[in-house]
Amino acid sequence: MSFALGLDYGTNSCRALIVRLDDGAEMGSAVFPYPSGELGILTDPGDPHLARQNPRDYLLGLEASVAGAVEAARAADPAFDPLDIVGIGVDTTGSTPIPIDRDGIPLALRPEFADHPAAAVWLWRDHTAHAEAAEITELAARERPHYLAKCGGTYSSEWWWSKILRCRRVAPEVFAAAHSWVEHCDWVPAVLTGRIRPEEIRRGICAAGHKAMFHPDWGGLPDEEFLGRLHPDLAALRGRLYDQAHSADQRAGDLTAEWAQKLGLKPGIAVAVGAFDAHMGAVGAGVREGVLVKIMGTSTCDITVAPLARELPDVPGLCGIVPGSVTAGCHGIEAGQSAVGDIFLWFVRQLVPDSYGTDPDARFAAMEKALEDSRPGSSGLLALDWHNGNRTILVDPRLTGLLVGQTLHTRAHEIYRAWIEATAFGALTIIRRMEEFGIRIDEVVNTGGLAVKNATLMQIYADVLNRPMKVAASDQTCALGAALFGAVAAGGHRLADLQQRCCHLRQQVYTPIPEHRQACDELYALYRELHDAFGTADWSGSLGHVMKRLLDLRDRSAG
Amino acid sequence: MSFALGLDYGTNSCRALIVRLDDGAEMGSAVFPYPSGELGILTDPGDPHLARQNPRDYLLGLEASVAGAVEAARAADPAFDPLDIVGIGVDTTGSTPIPIDRDGIPLALRPEFADHPAAAVWLWRDHTAHAEAAEITELAARERPHYLAKCGGTYSSEWWWSKILRCRRVAPEVFAAAHSWVEHCDWVPAVLTGRIRPEEIRRGICAAGHKAMFHPDWGGLPDEEFLGRLHPDLAALRGRLYDQAHSADQRAGDLTAEWAQKLGLKPGIAVAVGAFDAHMGAVGAGVREGVLVKIMGTSTCDITVAPLARELPDVPGLCGIVPGSVTAGCHGIEAGQSAVGDIFLWFVRQLVPDSYGTDPDARFAAMEKALEDSRPGSSGLLALDWHNGNRTILVDPRLTGLLVGQTLHTRAHEIYRAWIEATAFGALTIIRRMEEFGIRIDEVVNTGGLAVKNATLMQIYADVLNRPMKVAASDQTCALGAALFGAVAAGGHRLADLQQRCCHLRQQVYTPIPEHRQACDELYALYRELHDAFGTADWSGSLGHVMKRLLDLRDRSAG
Repeated sequence: MSFALGLDYGTNSCRALIVRLDDGAEMGSAVFPYPSGELGILTDPGDPHLARQNPRDYLLGLEASVAGAVEAARAADPAFDPLDIVGIGVDTTGSTPIPIDRDGIPLALRPEFADHPAAAVWLWRDHTAHAEAAEITELAARERPHYLAKCGGTYSSEWWWSKILRCRRVAPEVFAAAHSWVEHCDWVPAVLTGRIRPEEIRRGICAAGHKAMFHPDWGGLPDEEFLGRLHPDLAALRGRLYDQAHSADQRAGDLTAEWAQKLGLKPGIAVAVGAFDAHMGAVGAGVREGVLVKIMGTSTCDITVAPLARELPDVPGLCGIVPGSVTAGCHGIEAGQSAVGDIFLWFVRQLVPDSYGTDPDARFAAMEKALEDSRPGSSGLLALDWHNGNRTILVDPRLTGLLVGQTLHTRAHEIYRAWIEATAFGALTIIRRMEEFGIRIDEVVNTGGLAVKNATLMQIYADVLNRPMKVAASDQTCALGAALFGAVAAGGHRLADLQQRCCHLRQQVYTPIPEHRQACDELYALYRELHDAFGTADWSGSLGHVMKRLLDLRDRSAG
Repeated sequence: MSFALGLDYGTNSCRALIVRLDDGAEMGSAVFPYPSGELGILTDPGDPHLARQNPRDYLLGLEASVAGAVEAARAADPAFDPLDIVGIGVDTTGSTPIPIDRDGIPLALRPEFADHPAAAVWLWRDHTAHAEAAEITELAARERPHYLAKCGGTYSSEWWWSKILRCRRVAPEVFAAAHSWVEHCDWVPAVLTGRIRPEEIRRGICAAGHKAMFHPDWGGLPDEEFLGRLHPDLAALRGRLYDQAHSADQRAGDLTAEWAQKLGLKPGIAVAVGAFDAHMGAVGAGVREGVLVKIMGTSTCDITVAPLARELPDVPGLCGIVPGSVTAGCHGIEAGQSAVGDIFLWFVRQLVPDSYGTDPDARFAAMEKALEDSRPGSSGLLALDWHNGNRTILVDPRLTGLLVGQTLHTRAHEIYRAWIEATAFGALTIIRRMEEFGIRIDEVVNTGGLAVKNATLMQIYADVLNRPMKVAASDQTCALGAALFGAVAAGGHRLADLQQRCCHLRQQVYTPIPEHRQACDELYALYRELHDAFGTADWSGSLGHVMKRLLDLRDRSAG
């Protein structure tokens, strides 16, 4: 019997999961909520864009969550022995850069910087660097358009270089004290393996390729001249970062004796190179060629892979195509919707009256109940789901939500359905774009909160995408994927074999309802007209038929 | 001292008002809620389109409201003598047809029909005849396009012929028993003057011209051949209706001794020809050439006049232009928005959470408070106000509401402001259309619930229309207008002189805020693009700039 350990660092907590490699049985897991700040996030009342973390929380969480997982595994099976764990994998949020000193110690752990927000971890959702992101996009569009082509055409305020440049601008003393920077997902393996000095850390291709504009085509990170145009100090920093990046099946190093003792594990076992949660979650949900994994939460991340052997063009509007970022030997292909669950949460909090219930959960339940027998098109409504911009395929943050078809009889639950449908149409648009460029999508597997909890949504997605919607069995696909990488890094396992044995689906599959299909296709045709009309610069046409077709559809649906 | 009496029959109640003709002083008034049905409306749980009334309520209301008004006038001024009332004017809702027998008695007052809904009064808002309306529109479009040109291009289910045809179809026994039909506004003067047999009743041009396709150009009502194509019995009915129609400054007849005694008035005083409430309300608010009166309620009616001497073309999209329908010697010009207050009521009931208050009034108050310092464009939202279709200038019931610009930060009160702005843009579109066709609009006077109660809305209208928004002083402009017609019918008064003496404005005038003007114009330009794109068949263009301009405007407004 052998086992692997997955460590999943989320936004508010971290989780450890012990997986049996024979069959994927989840032996035990534990969650540790970060103690610092507000739900683990350091905020600034004067700046809503600021979101930082305390790196000490990651270390505390490491010990506590592994201890908890081991204890749970032992409680479930007294024969379980943590010394049978052969490898460890790590995933985290990202881009979540940490400024570190010459010894690899996060500046925030040094007393003189303990309270300096710029010395803390710059959490993925920190948006203080929006001006810097715009500056990087503008410079790259002018001077290095190929950099942008790999990340969908726009560099984000959430990403690596925006944040580091921001730090240089607003906290030069912190920037000066930082010998280097490291992604959260690379720092945890560095700690566990003792390869913690900046020049020793093995960096993951996932973070490097998707967030730091690292690509073999141009020899790694952006060139010095480009960085120097942003700030001379960035050019100087380049040499203290990295020039190689590795896929997560690679070994970051061996577990040190010190950490082995702290965690009760065997010294010297493999620690895999780290990657982002969505990518490892996709692996845990069973991603492979032809399988699209949708991680459905407040926003959505869509991940699939295509063999490196196959030539892939740049696909317009896809966030990123990075060799090896998901699995070795494959292009990792990432797309996403900037807001999905967030739209429903906004709606239920801001616009759903108490007649549906006094708290958001009760309101969702009442609206879903009211929608039980509803049919596509029956409300006459149609929406665009761009409340937080559109990541794929328009790659444009300056777009907004639209709702058409309102009458004096429109009810809140009908609008809720329209928002769900709009996100489904957005999902279909992503799949169609992938297929147009030769990326195979034979199967869709869903994971994340919405996939598990929202049957109304899953049925609408099945109807709209005209595909069975499958749901990953595990509630913790990110930690599961991380564990599988730990096993692969240990040697003796192929990832695909492990996925076949360990990544299961739930019995419940949502299949398209034949009577809904025609209306969904008609609605999608209208959605695409609105999508192109409002979302692209080159569309020209007429829309005088839109409201009338929606009313016709409503009347047919009612009759 | 001389006085006139105005009788105003609304949807739920009727009102009597005694006006002093020297200065418009409102000596006394009283309201009588109709006792039948639900708030005066007979409904059918199985058919939400059905809305009927009991004619007995009108007779009860006549006695009770006049008695109350006289009593109130005496209480206010012991010297007041009801025998000094020189004339009576009447306005009602419409089109509100009543089936009557050979003696002019409403069928509903005969025992055998007392409980038959088709024998009751067909209230304006009854929509059971939508199929018949479509049939009339289709036939007229094919065979008599000039009939439609005067009523804006579409015949409504609320109107005279739709309802009578519907009655023939669903209740032939009622249709057969009805010797003739009469509008509510013509029946009350008929009762008061004793000229109640169908062939004696003096019909008003207001109802005839706006709702029954009566026009001097084609010799009165639609021709027999046309009516016969709808149903042979309609052709036969035509001869038992009327071939003349009169403006409201004409005398319908003299008050009978019997009614004079019941009401405590002088026998033989003038009773004016009746008209619709909005038209008489416009007169009570001071309508004249160059003055647009906006009656602002659940929907909006816009009324102005232009001298008959001036040749007026058919104005595309105006509901109706009828000689003499408002004041003698002028074209009565009517436009309107199908839903204004109704949109706000729908929104506050269906989509405003209890955090703004537990009942609609509290929610409105909280939203208006939250909007106190808001500026146009500051939310990034823009809307189309077509929840109930668009009456003017698109004349298309098959249009719906649209809201663009929603983000995850959008709040309910910002959406409320967007709906208000949309109705203001709709109002501006009407004014611009009138001006394009040579109708002068120098001044806007508002009346009705929204004008009096909603300061937020009035300020937004002033900013958008770029005109001072004035508000009529009287809370009962319909009854005031009716009283003035009673005085004119009595002889010795010119309407314009009476208006100058009796129709006053409130001191509070809402003037455009200079800093808001630029943003309003930019928003209106975008509104017109959406208006034409979604509302017309022949628009072609691009809309990719709309969301971005709204965000630019928001950012500028915030900064």
